[in-house]
Amino acid sequence: MLSIEQIQKLAAPAKSKIVLLVMDGLGGLPDVTTGKTELESARTPNLDRLAAGGMCGLHEPVAPGITPGSGPGHLGLFGYDPLRYLIGRGVLEGMGIDFPLGPDDIAARGNFCTVDSAGIITDRRAGRIATEKSAELCRLLAQIKLDEVQIFVSPVKEHRFLVVFRGKGLSPEIDDTDPERVGVSPKSVRPLTAAAVRTAGIVTSFLEQTRMILAQHRPANMVLLRGFSRVPQLPRLAEVYKLRAAAIATYPMYKGLARLLGMTVFDGGSTIHDSIRTAREQWAEFDFFFIHVKNTDAAGEDGNFSHKVAAIEEVDAALPDLLALKPDVIAVTGDHSTPAVLKAHSWHPVPLAISSMWCRPSGVSKFGETNCAAGNLGIIRGLDIMPLLMAHGLRLTKYGA
Amino acid sequence: MLSIEQIQKLAAPAKSKIVLLVMDGLGGLPDVTTGKTELESARTPNLDRLAAGGMCGLHEPVAPGITPGSGPGHLGLFGYDPLRYLIGRGVLEGMGIDFPLGPDDIAARGNFCTVDSAGIITDRRAGRIATEKSAELCRLLAQIKLDEVQIFVSPVKEHRFLVVFRGKGLSPEIDDTDPERVGVSPKSVRPLTAAAVRTAGIVTSFLEQTRMILAQHRPANMVLLRGFSRVPQLPRLAEVYKLRAAAIATYPMYKGLARLLGMTVFDGGSTIHDSIRTAREQWAEFDFFFIHVKNTDAAGEDGNFSHKVAAIEEVDAALPDLLALKPDVIAVTGDHSTPAVLKAHSWHPVPLAISSMWCRPSGVSKFGETNCAAGNLGIIRGLDIMPLLMAHGLRLTKYGA
Repeated sequence: MLSIEQIQKLAAPAKSKIVLLVMDGLGGLPDVTTGKTELESARTPNLDRLAAGGMCGLHEPVAPGITPGSGPGHLGLFGYDPLRYLIGRGVLEGMGIDFPLGPDDIAARGNFCTVDSAGIITDRRAGRIATEKSAELCRLLAQIKLDEVQIFVSPVKEHRFLVVFRGKGLSPEIDDTDPERVGVSPKSVRPLTAAAVRTAGIVTSFLEQTRMILAQHRPANMVLLRGFSRVPQLPRLAEVYKLRAAAIATYPMYKGLARLLGMTVFDGGSTIHDSIRTAREQWAEFDFFFIHVKNTDAAGEDGNFSHKVAAIEEVDAALPDLLALKPDVIAVTGDHSTPAVLKAHSWHPVPLAISSMWCRPSGVSKFGETNCAAGNLGIIRGLDIMPLLMAHGLRLTKYGA
Repeated sequence: MLSIEQIQKLAAPAKSKIVLLVMDGLGGLPDVTTGKTELESARTPNLDRLAAGGMCGLHEPVAPGITPGSGPGHLGLFGYDPLRYLIGRGVLEGMGIDFPLGPDDIAARGNFCTVDSAGIITDRRAGRIATEKSAELCRLLAQIKLDEVQIFVSPVKEHRFLVVFRGKGLSPEIDDTDPERVGVSPKSVRPLTAAAVRTAGIVTSFLEQTRMILAQHRPANMVLLRGFSRVPQLPRLAEVYKLRAAAIATYPMYKGLARLLGMTVFDGGSTIHDSIRTAREQWAEFDFFFIHVKNTDAAGEDGNFSHKVAAIEEVDAALPDLLALKPDVIAVTGDHSTPAVLKAHSWHPVPLAISSMWCRPSGVSKFGETNCAAGNLGIIRGLDIMPLLMAHGLRLTKYGA
């Protein structure tokens, strides 16, 4: 495997257009009655033709057996080693609600929780209070004033919220206060390094005021914080690969991640057709188009096999419009698997098809997990996808003499 | 690849039961007349069904082209990188005869050899003297007294023996005295670090007394020592994977290795049926069962193709009893290949089948090297097996947010 710095040395500008179409959570598991996965159950004549004429295989987003979060899954797709580059939970939560995080901000993911009179946690999610209630409580907490730092508190969904500490010289090296179980007190704020002692004091003051403010707000009478983090400094995708990169996505987190990599971000609209229209409008301006489809994952998380099938079929039906733009290279894959039967992200490798005039064709009859497992790309790491796309776009020079 | 420390962070307790059934030296090479390997020649309806409904592939115990010893092969199966964790030859020999090595003991593997009147080695194995003769000589050497250290000398098999130096402040950083060829003198005892100078002096004294004691015992009139080593400190398997781990094995070396990893060790008895009975008796008490079958490897080492076939068929016949325990995840594989035609361990990747309700089924018709090479698991590293078993047991949390 080459590092991103080594790939950058090989990357050369070219005129080719590359499309990376990501169906979030694409990989699945068989339905017990039919023995077919969501993708295998879907009627996908266009994807099948693409996979037959191109290469197909499976990719391991992180490593065999490892279930990736959305952050690591996408970083890998963009060629950033997810074991090397980490995005903290707090930052990801901020990206998910489009919070404009500054380079020095410390972000943490918060849970409203319930504690008893002795301060023991009885419910880590305060009965999953309504988002509206959470928003009201966040407004109360946002009024907390501390010397030297600004505090932002924003609702996310139900009991979840984001807290951001803005000021000079803060450190994210702080342990979670969330003990991840009930029957114990929230953990005290523990600095993990000497540089974080002052920040830990600030967070402690915030939590003391929070406790007083929320005391009468049972069930949500306390908070738990985790994933203290700062926006990581990542090499810009455009500079690594020497191309103009556009991201077309609807969900804030994917937009935020793309922005973090320096991509120009466009709203994906409400359907794949909107996203493809945007790609068409921007076609001349960019060399690389990341198009993100969320509803495959959402259906998988809901355990709704047929909705996931339908989401895949919707993409298939729109594919000819995308191919009409005549990309030099197109990859269709997912950032991880989300089998409907598991109702969650999983570790299973993800179907991948890559089409370009410089491909050896796979000749498979159908784009699906079973054929991809025996496909001519083999089982590769997610990290390997970007170099393959670049190569097929004739954008990578020779390694060594 | 995640390190064992990274896997440990993702591991979470669960109620699932995992079985790792290791047929030592399972992988083979084709018989020249039939074109089928030992496994492919065996009638294995139960293994075939397991592989068809589960995933199958090949694993590389260390790396392509590398023939593993039994230590590295098994360490890899347990998820311990065999390139990072090494068990010295002396320690492995001690484990093989169940010698209770202490944490400070220095163990070395010894050969009785023959030297001529000028001290030149004429036979590195002293004509492979009988084990009984070796035991008699070991009793003589065990009487050697040195200041500050206790000495233990134990026969292993034929010309092989174990010597252990027990005392404070000893170091294993000592070069072999075995030149690995005849026509030269045994090498003098050379310390590899300054910290080993004192230990080298002790070993030199031991060898000087040995020379005098054995002088009249031609052909075994001298010894060669190699693999000076101390028991390595390895992370305990139960702590890494957060499960209760049982090892069921018959041969001392595998028991010793399992003990080194902190597993609870049970005797495997004389057949696979005994081992499975033990698994059944202990089923409620453990989450992970390593079951070791030795006679596949023994038949391979003997070059006895049909005995290896029979050993595989015996396991297949017993498999239903093991499956009747309803493990959530079961893997069947080997620690390395031992093709009967080679009469030795080999570098060939090893057939692997993993079955669980969360598998994508492979649909192969037969569990064997050819089908596994095209299997839906691909060709993975031995190291990847434990994360896969953990994932299928729903015992690994998500990596990253």
